[in-house]
Amino acid sequence: MSANPDPALHPLDRATRLVRNPDGSLSGHTDPAYANMVGPFGGVTAAVMLNAVLTHPERLGDPVALTVNYAGAVADGEFRIDAVPMRTNRSTQHWSITASQGEAVTTTATAFFALRRDTWSATESGFPRVPPADEVPSRDSSAFTTWTRCYDMRFVKGYLSDDSKAGHEPDSVSTLWIRDEPPRSLDFVALAAICDSFFPRVMIRRPRRVPAGTVSLTTYFHSDARQLATVGNRHVLATARASRFGLGYHDQSAEIWSEGGALLATSHQVVYFKE
Amino acid sequence: MSANPDPALHPLDRATRLVRNPDGSLSGHTDPAYANMVGPFGGVTAAVMLNAVLTHPERLGDPVALTVNYAGAVADGEFRIDAVPMRTNRSTQHWSITASQGEAVTTTATAFFALRRDTWSATESGFPRVPPADEVPSRDSSAFTTWTRCYDMRFVKGYLSDDSKAGHEPDSVSTLWIRDEPPRSLDFVALAAICDSFFPRVMIRRPRRVPAGTVSLTTYFHSDARQLATVGNRHVLATARASRFGLGYHDQSAEIWSEGGALLATSHQVVYFKE
Repeated sequence: MSANPDPALHPLDRATRLVRNPDGSLSGHTDPAYANMVGPFGGVTAAVMLNAVLTHPERLGDPVALTVNYAGAVADGEFRIDAVPMRTNRSTQHWSITASQGEAVTTTATAFFALRRDTWSATESGFPRVPPADEVPSRDSSAFTTWTRCYDMRFVKGYLSDDSKAGHEPDSVSTLWIRDEPPRSLDFVALAAICDSFFPRVMIRRPRRVPAGTVSLTTYFHSDARQLATVGNRHVLATARASRFGLGYHDQSAEIWSEGGALLATSHQVVYFKE
Repeated sequence: MSANPDPALHPLDRATRLVRNPDGSLSGHTDPAYANMVGPFGGVTAAVMLNAVLTHPERLGDPVALTVNYAGAVADGEFRIDAVPMRTNRSTQHWSITASQGEAVTTTATAFFALRRDTWSATESGFPRVPPADEVPSRDSSAFTTWTRCYDMRFVKGYLSDDSKAGHEPDSVSTLWIRDEPPRSLDFVALAAICDSFFPRVMIRRPRRVPAGTVSLTTYFHSDARQLATVGNRHVLATARASRFGLGYHDQSAEIWSEGGALLATSHQVVYFKE
């Protein structure tokens, strides 16, 4: 494998590219485009863990659930992934995935895949009331962190404030239109990353910048590959809120909607914060 | 170890009891009190996975996040658990946990533990408007499934309907007061089990009984051991709803509150359903 970025690939495909080693493990490489304050953007790490299963020769069906645990900082450079099918049933499959650098485990994950089939369906959450994406200005957050340049983010509500703003926000809700920048067709890899593209809720609510980072992320996919493909490279609507802050951690629940009102994914995480 | 139930133990402690083997693995045994339609109640399985870490000599701090994947049916009888600390940091620890029977993996899990410390805190979700527990009648669901006898469940809203009820419910929300039966002081083991004590949302929403079962469950604990202990053996308020049903699966998000209005845990799951 080569550690050199390939300019012909979309940055997300470059950052999530995995090469299979003779022992069955995979090798990947962090990409400077997705640099976060420390190590890579957690959304790309989640996408890499998912991609280790998506590209696995024994993979069955589409992802339904993905949990990623950020166990330690990922250093810039190469990493190794081991993806193990722990149990394969007739139409479902459970995976255990571990990323490491040298002897240190950096990330653990579990994924549940299934052959999806049409059934009774209903959406109980409501699509947020928002203006269309082209009526909302794009915000540049790259002074805050590099990886945001890989997205076009149009905030309807809950943009990151600066520290000078006095007092607490009434809630931690953020709602934005988002797509990959440059545009790229939505798939599970891109959607997994977008589910972690929210700034930590504690910074919206207080609002002030404090040390904070995701420690565990769980995403449920409500679409199959065919439905995701119909989204194309259009913006998706992303909304997130916290329910409880305290004892050094807070949760976050998010929804990702297509422009057409399909709930593509719901995603939950627990976030470390200081102070 | 003995497979014989010990009548001096609370049923939950009996069902989650683990014996350490010379090779470091743990042995447990399903308990008939928590029998579900197939295998044991998933909440007790989650509690057992968590207990494998709670009782581990290398365990650091309190649980913050727990994800349990129900990979295959658990047969009545003995099971083996392997709990591995994947990464231990200064004040945090990531675990990987696997339950098996013979050669078959039945359950996988990851857990994140941490030394919790006082920080800024806020609760953004609202405590549901409900009458006190002693004004709500207890419901007997044991005709539906055995394990419900291990709980005192007082439904404010969203009790399981029978098939004869016509039409769809407007939403899938259930809200109930619940405690272990017989009463038992709340701890992480009990709370982990309660987080899975909701009937599948699809049966509330449609409402009809269909084959359904949890495939992956994630719980975030917002209290430390000391705070949980203050709940004692009083009821907690549990509320759950789904956001999307389709392609054979639906999600569920739940909140567990103390009587006094502390949000003890938020919990999410994805549920298989047929039709």
